[in-house]
Amino acid sequence: MKKRKICVVVCSRANYSSIKSAMEAIENHPNLELQLVLGASAILDRYGSLDEQINIQNINISEKVYMLLEGENPVTMAKSTGIGLIELPSVFERLKPDIVVTVGDRFETMATTLSAAYMNIPIAHTMGGEVSGTIDESIRHAITKFSHIHFPASKDAAERIKKLGEKEDSIFHVGCPRIDLVNEYLNQVPKNLDQALNEGVGDTLDFSQPFVLVSQHPVTTEYGSGESQITETLKAIRKLDIQAAILWPNADAGSDDIGRGIRKWREKGLDKNMHFYKNLPIEVYVHLLNKTKCLIGNSSSGIREGAFIGTPVVNIGSRQDARERGQNVMDVKNSTNDIYNAILAQIKNGKYQSDPIYGDGTAGIKIANILSKCDWDIQKRITY
Amino acid sequence: MKKRKICVVVCSRANYSSIKSAMEAIENHPNLELQLVLGASAILDRYGSLDEQINIQNINISEKVYMLLEGENPVTMAKSTGIGLIELPSVFERLKPDIVVTVGDRFETMATTLSAAYMNIPIAHTMGGEVSGTIDESIRHAITKFSHIHFPASKDAAERIKKLGEKEDSIFHVGCPRIDLVNEYLNQVPKNLDQALNEGVGDTLDFSQPFVLVSQHPVTTEYGSGESQITETLKAIRKLDIQAAILWPNADAGSDDIGRGIRKWREKGLDKNMHFYKNLPIEVYVHLLNKTKCLIGNSSSGIREGAFIGTPVVNIGSRQDARERGQNVMDVKNSTNDIYNAILAQIKNGKYQSDPIYGDGTAGIKIANILSKCDWDIQKRITY
Amino acid sequence: MKKRKICVVVCSRANYSSIKSAMEAIENHPNLELQLVLGASAILDRYGSLDEQINIQNINISEKVYMLLEGENPVTMAKSTGIGLIELPSVFERLKPDIVVTVGDRFETMATTLSAAYMNIPIAHTMGGEVSGTIDESIRHAITKFSHIHFPASKDAAERIKKLGEKEDSIFHVGCPRIDLVNEYLNQVPKNLDQALNEGVGDTLDFSQPFVLVSQHPVTTEYGSGESQITETLKAIRKLDIQAAILWPNADAGSDDIGRGIRKWREKGLDKNMHFYKNLPIEVYVHLLNKTKCLIGNSSSGIREGAFIGTPVVNIGSRQDARERGQNVMDVKNSTNDIYNAILAQIKNGKYQSDPIYGDGTAGIKIANILSKCDWDIQKRITY
Amino acid sequence: MKKRKICVVVCSRANYSSIKSAMEAIENHPNLELQLVLGASAILDRYGSLDEQINIQNINISEKVYMLLEGENPVTMAKSTGIGLIELPSVFERLKPDIVVTVGDRFETMATTLSAAYMNIPIAHTMGGEVSGTIDESIRHAITKFSHIHFPASKDAAERIKKLGEKEDSIFHVGCPRIDLVNEYLNQVPKNLDQALNEGVGDTLDFSQPFVLVSQHPVTTEYGSGESQITETLKAIRKLDIQAAILWPNADAGSDDIGRGIRKWREKGLDKNMHFYKNLPIEVYVHLLNKTKCLIGNSSSGIREGAFIGTPVVNIGSRQDARERGQNVMDVKNSTNDIYNAILAQIKNGKYQSDPIYGDGTAGIKIANILSKCDWDIQKRITY
Repeated sequence: MKKRKICVVVCSRANYSSIKSAMEAIENHPNLELQLVLGASAILDRYGSLDEQINIQNINISEKVYMLLEGENPVTMAKSTGIGLIELPSVFERLKPDIVVTVGDRFETMATTLSAAYMNIPIAHTMGGEVSGTIDESIRHAITKFSHIHFPASKDAAERIKKLGEKEDSIFHVGCPRIDLVNEYLNQVPKNLDQALNEGVGDTLDFSQPFVLVSQHPVTTEYGSGESQITETLKAIRKLDIQAAILWPNADAGSDDIGRGIRKWREKGLDKNMHFYKNLPIEVYVHLLNKTKCLIGNSSSGIREGAFIGTPVVNIGSRQDARERGQNVMDVKNSTNDIYNAILAQIKNGKYQSDPIYGDGTAGIKIANILSKCDWDIQKRITY
Repeated sequence: MKKRKICVVVCSRANYSSIKSAMEAIENHPNLELQLVLGASAILDRYGSLDEQINIQNINISEKVYMLLEGENPVTMAKSTGIGLIELPSVFERLKPDIVVTVGDRFETMATTLSAAYMNIPIAHTMGGEVSGTIDESIRHAITKFSHIHFPASKDAAERIKKLGEKEDSIFHVGCPRIDLVNEYLNQVPKNLDQALNEGVGDTLDFSQPFVLVSQHPVTTEYGSGESQITETLKAIRKLDIQAAILWPNADAGSDDIGRGIRKWREKGLDKNMHFYKNLPIEVYVHLLNKTKCLIGNSSSGIREGAFIGTPVVNIGSRQDARERGQNVMDVKNSTNDIYNAILAQIKNGKYQSDPIYGDGTAGIKIANILSKCDWDIQKRITY
Repeated sequence: MKKRKICVVVCSRANYSSIKSAMEAIENHPNLELQLVLGASAILDRYGSLDEQINIQNINISEKVYMLLEGENPVTMAKSTGIGLIELPSVFERLKPDIVVTVGDRFETMATTLSAAYMNIPIAHTMGGEVSGTIDESIRHAITKFSHIHFPASKDAAERIKKLGEKEDSIFHVGCPRIDLVNEYLNQVPKNLDQALNEGVGDTLDFSQPFVLVSQHPVTTEYGSGESQITETLKAIRKLDIQAAILWPNADAGSDDIGRGIRKWREKGLDKNMHFYKNLPIEVYVHLLNKTKCLIGNSSSGIREGAFIGTPVVNIGSRQDARERGQNVMDVKNSTNDIYNAILAQIKNGKYQSDPIYGDGTAGIKIANILSKCDWDIQKRITY
Repeated sequence: MKKRKICVVVCSRANYSSIKSAMEAIENHPNLELQLVLGASAILDRYGSLDEQINIQNINISEKVYMLLEGENPVTMAKSTGIGLIELPSVFERLKPDIVVTVGDRFETMATTLSAAYMNIPIAHTMGGEVSGTIDESIRHAITKFSHIHFPASKDAAERIKKLGEKEDSIFHVGCPRIDLVNEYLNQVPKNLDQALNEGVGDTLDFSQPFVLVSQHPVTTEYGSGESQITETLKAIRKLDIQAAILWPNADAGSDDIGRGIRKWREKGLDKNMHFYKNLPIEVYVHLLNKTKCLIGNSSSGIREGAFIGTPVVNIGSRQDARERGQNVMDVKNSTNDIYNAILAQIKNGKYQSDPIYGDGTAGIKIANILSKCDWDIQKRITY
């Protein structure tokens, strides 16, 4: 039997850890052949290129696609998607995949989705059906309307995809593949832990002592507010006088604003007990999520991985609005005082119970099995 | 009061007649300022450029956007959208519209939609919520998920938009602006009738005698079948031995196939009593729709304008599958015999009653009024 | 020994016949591997795609590159080059050629040239050093300044390349590979002759009787004048009352103008004894160049192939200004009377002597041999 | 009289200071209207956006063009030029300049040049005719072959442009506009001096004590060697034990390599007495060029501005090969020892005499005057 060619397009480090376990399962499946395409920030040094990490895994990179136009603002976000739409059809023309897998809801995923859809290649979509803020909310549901196979992470999301008019037999509630990684990494100490924690700039932290984690990204629909938003957060942390490991923002419209906020903070010498990381290997990040007193910011990882691990989370602002969440998340506005009080409360509460809302650690294997057998109708039809 | 700037992006002649009455109403509204952007085939000689027609109307063209990559296949369809996504953000950056209006469901509309959405400009969408075949089906619903203001043409479509999770107060059932034009043109003889009917190539037809109209476009999800599909139709018409006015296909992936089918037919000398038009002015087209014994092919105009006029229609193949239709439409497969029999039946039946299913002729004015007053929340939220 | 990979980029039918004999010699050379990239109009149906012709030759097409943005005006000419510059670097990245061969001076060749140059791939250029009108004049010399290996067609051109500051040992006067084809085809009757002559539209011609050939292209630096220019020519031919085989113009800015001129001429019914060809296979074209009473227009083929064959040529307008020419060419302005008188004079004169000014039929083999052995310095240095 | 519209396209900070005095003269000329287009790194925060600086000057920015594709390697260098070629024609279409001015020889200047050339807009080129290493060497001469008006900086360069086949009356030896700035800034202490010198990272320097300046850029034709090249230089400086102000490299293919070299050096803690600047305002840079004991690296400023000021320069590697230079420059290989010895020798020698080889400080005014009066023939012709 001819193997089905499954092309996975990965456009960021976050994409990568969201699909890694599924890629491994595809690679190992007797009836599937993995085609990995890396694009956008996933191949850029300054966002932490994935090349090295992937080489270790013995996965072959089929193609690399440069598509990010410098500027990091709404105009270049749209234009970058356009460049992806010029590049990816040639890639698919060469690879001739049987199915294209697209992950989540970042702006570049529209380039993957439209390229495949216009070329009549069936699309499998992970992490659809969820609800959030920013433009991701529209992107995610639009991709659902182009997709032929749906792999929602939660039951609630699966239900929503059905309401969007997708056929029930095209929806497979498999859980989130990120939880597979968390499950794998949770009880092992990463080999590269010390090295990874020594990267970056700022004060040296003692991770045997209490620390908080900060991961705050720009909100594309509030473009221009990033600098003041991160500053509110940094003030709250300074007031707490606790060690803080702070992650650099994603490559979205507005990440320059947040970067500027961080730089100014440091230039003013307000960064005592703070260490800044460009990015952390996923296994190190999971390790820290497990050990931290509190995760602060607006990363979806607090809500998703945090639920499984039981990490106390202070979720700031609108970015994760309406995303299904467990007990571990406390929501606050972009205000130093609110943030400060919420962190105190979370530290006091300590670790939460594990909650399988976003998966139980077997999503990747389920995805591979379904991809090896599923049918689809290339002509989509809304169910109502 | 500052006028709201309404930017309408028109990417084809069909787009143009689908929005013309709304543009006129916007242009004439005291609180609105019209910004017209022409792109894709709307500015190309070989599809019948719109420049002249628009000049007559005294509408100012704000920008022209070249975006069609030659090739007319699925790969260039995707890449052309990418070029649009590189060009349109610069256009919006200069024009700074308060609202962008996008029309229908052609592949280029995704460029308009994503450019506006990523730039946080609210989007108004006409003709959403309908159901059809081809990739248009996915495009249409995806645009709905990016749009802030919906102008469905039928009640059924309005209902479907609501089911897709859009807020009820963002949905305005206004009817189809194309019907406004039909209403305007129906009882007047176009000034340019004789000239328009003399354009094109082929035998001279006598329009005081019975004739059929043919308008058949490629089905993007059946790419490669266009030549055989048009040939089945042409055989049926030849067998009928009736005069036929035949329209050239749209600039979609596959239009070259249909074009080749027509050319070969002509080269074989089988085109007696047939005349071929690259395009017809909308007023002439409406006049012919009113006078023809039967419209044959897979154009949506048979279903939409045809319902209002009562034109007997033979609708071929899957392109209009699931589009809401009136009594005037008879559906058949791509088969000479089926087509032949259906045409005979429709000619025998004659004109149908007018049916307001797609509007009553006031859509344009309604759209302008709503655009002058409506509110929106730039951060979209699914309702469930 | 590892074979040198020679990547030839062909962007039009004219490009193809200008490099065909060299490609065959590369393909057959024991130390060379041919990589053929087809782009721009070379892969478009409406300019006569090369696919079929190349399949017959058993040459493998490595990549196809869609790069022509519809519009055919100066703006889209520049943008199309930009699209080529986005696409070709990915192509070279995959093929990893040792040398890139670029042909002549069309606008798309700048995309090939800049892609290779910026990627530090050595460039071999054919047909450099000549002098002509239009933007080609600048393009040709600019490509020389980026090229590492020069294959001029004439001694005069070789001399000019040296004056441009190129190193003497990088310049190889090999003659024009088009003449190799002419030499091959000249004394054989093409197998596809009848079929090729039956293509196209217009009156049926009797090629055993006297006829003229017309090949007139737009002058990019006189954009907008194409329609009146071709009309002057058509008037002269009509006045002569001789059979005329007329070729469709190249895909340059302005070809729509010429196309419109031809279409209007036909619509007025002035096309008695005229037949219009979209394109002719090169062997058929050579056959006609040999048999015609006169070639009329502004094609370089009259000056180059015409010299070798001895074809009487009436060269119109500025397009070939300053190109080295033999006795067979008579130059006239864009004026019906001048054109008419010159044709009469050329018909009266009859065939000219063969002149080897543009080569003796061995250019392709010379090029392959040199490419298999030559050295270059990737860092270019002007010689003065 | 209608003012001539002069469109200046500035793609980097270096471009800006190379044309600033000419822009001021154009802005102030009664018969000229300045259109300023900023593109590429000139509008990016991370290379030091020019917006603020230009606002101070009261010059209106007509358009901004995002064109840099992230990656900073040979492939993205070519693709970025392609994006420029898609964007700039629309800009010129709107601005309708009478003349486009392009500066120097960076890769993006080809986008400006081809856009204008293909659109039949005359091109004026500054800093042509010089000789250097890297791909700039080819770019510069190619632009000359597209340009209608030449503004060489030196007599030698003017002579070379003539040899390239350009008409003598199109060549105006005006000197380098950068020298105009140097002349203006040389004897005044910049207002923003202290602030500018406090930017950046690293040890605090005492500029009243001896210091060296380092400005080392990637050599595109030696892509991949940047890290080892900068390391050789940093070793030499460390060995000297003198204060060093070190500038971040340009946004060329390879700048990431140099950046990495600098970062690793700092992470190893070898950066005593070193301060790193992302960029310096031109007036501050001139001030430092005047005060430094020695400029080290491969910047053209050592050769050009250095000649006028008399700065001792140690020029490393091939980047400036063959550029005309004065007595103040000592050339060495990329080797710690050679660099070390040369710096010692230059410090010992001290300041050199001023040399007007690259201009006397009046280039900008000369350029504006010529642009207001000059003629050109849009159809270029080589002179031999």
